[in-house]
Amino acid sequence: MVVLPELASCGYPLASAEEARSCAEKGSLSLQRWQEAADGGITVIAGFSESAPDGVYNSCALIDQSGVRTIYRKLHLWDREKLLFSPGTAAPVLVDTSFGVIAMAICYDLEFPELTRNLALSGADLLALPTATPYNPRPTGTHPMAVTLAMATARLNGIFLACCDHCDSERGLPFDGGSVIVSNNGWLLAGPPPEYGEGLVMADCDLEAARDKKRGERNDLFADRRPLLYESGRP
Amino acid sequence: MVVLPELASCGYPLASAEEARSCAEKGSLSLQRWQEAADGGITVIAGFSESAPDGVYNSCALIDQSGVRTIYRKLHLWDREKLLFSPGTAAPVLVDTSFGVIAMAICYDLEFPELTRNLALSGADLLALPTATPYNPRPTGTHPMAVTLAMATARLNGIFLACCDHCDSERGLPFDGGSVIVSNNGWLLAGPPPEYGEGLVMADCDLEAARDKKRGERNDLFADRRPLLYESGRP
Repeated sequence: MVVLPELASCGYPLASAEEARSCAEKGSLSLQRWQEAADGGITVIAGFSESAPDGVYNSCALIDQSGVRTIYRKLHLWDREKLLFSPGTAAPVLVDTSFGVIAMAICYDLEFPELTRNLALSGADLLALPTATPYNPRPTGTHPMAVTLAMATARLNGIFLACCDHCDSERGLPFDGGSVIVSNNGWLLAGPPPEYGEGLVMADCDLEAARDKKRGERNDLFADRRPLLYESGRP
Repeated sequence: MVVLPELASCGYPLASAEEARSCAEKGSLSLQRWQEAADGGITVIAGFSESAPDGVYNSCALIDQSGVRTIYRKLHLWDREKLLFSPGTAAPVLVDTSFGVIAMAICYDLEFPELTRNLALSGADLLALPTATPYNPRPTGTHPMAVTLAMATARLNGIFLACCDHCDSERGLPFDGGSVIVSNNGWLLAGPPPEYGEGLVMADCDLEAARDKKRGERNDLFADRRPLLYESGRP
């Protein structure tokens, strides 16, 4: 399975709604090329600008030998994306593949823990996350915050996570370059690439391990939940 | 405001339900001492073994000059705690203090993102988190996973977080020593102490900053939520 970045078909950032639309109209070319790769036996998850009768979406597709299995439209748009794209109007779907159950989200979607929790509770083994995370200054020697969020999301939900980010800079916008593969216990299996630059981040993941939420003899990440008691209040 | 660890009154781990009960019976002594400190003008949040007519609880109290403001009983018990304590049966409460709105949770509670999300949505400015996190092997040069979870929880919810852990080891059980204060953007303001040992972790926090969930010109961590679309499904 190969995960490519957010808007891998056209680059990031886009200048205007017109450019987003024009990229979207050419988007089918990218899907065609990814289908050719998928025909060789790999599963491709990649972001693209999607043209639809009712708007242009910041989407990602999961493509395998049988074709486009599903398209997810980003639910939470970041900054100027709000000027370029329509937000998705459908809940994300899980895709059963020969590897395991794959969920998709895009970049800023990761900042909504209810979304990722629900994907995990619905049976996701791995969350594929195309991203384009603008660089933010950070303390020396620390990973980008997006890597921390990826690790925590994997750990809290007992799922694997594969995040592919842009790197270096495009049109003057520098990126985090925080492409990582995270295990179902939250630790990094691979990535980020050296100096957060270009690179291939690869790991073997036994996705079945994500179905075991037991932690030690007496705990279970899901069975230990007490959802009826999560509504807090003032004394 | 001072945050002390989980079961600060009696130590961790406890050997048996009998010991937990006997510690709880002596627990009022700790509350008395913390009240004396609080009388001096500080707010104390500390973990203790609580004796109640219906059981013994792994609790923490928020104490200020006006007395015990609230007691929270841990909702999610870890490992052998299940043999020693009854789980809490009430939702956590928020406490209005002169510093801001304080929420409390204990250790493993942090692994339930629905809980921390609801505390934030209910108006928490800071989550105080007494912990006793057993040491787990980790990659060289990385913080304990609990620190990653604390950072992510603060970042995703735009709240401050003050976690006080045990350190070194007690009765042969080594601890993470991951005491930290995290800002509302997820970065460490202070801690962990050198070599994850004994130490005083201090920071100034402007808790009002936690009420601004805006991020840049066009985003807001809470207003951007799309809760009606979080129920995922299979295509």
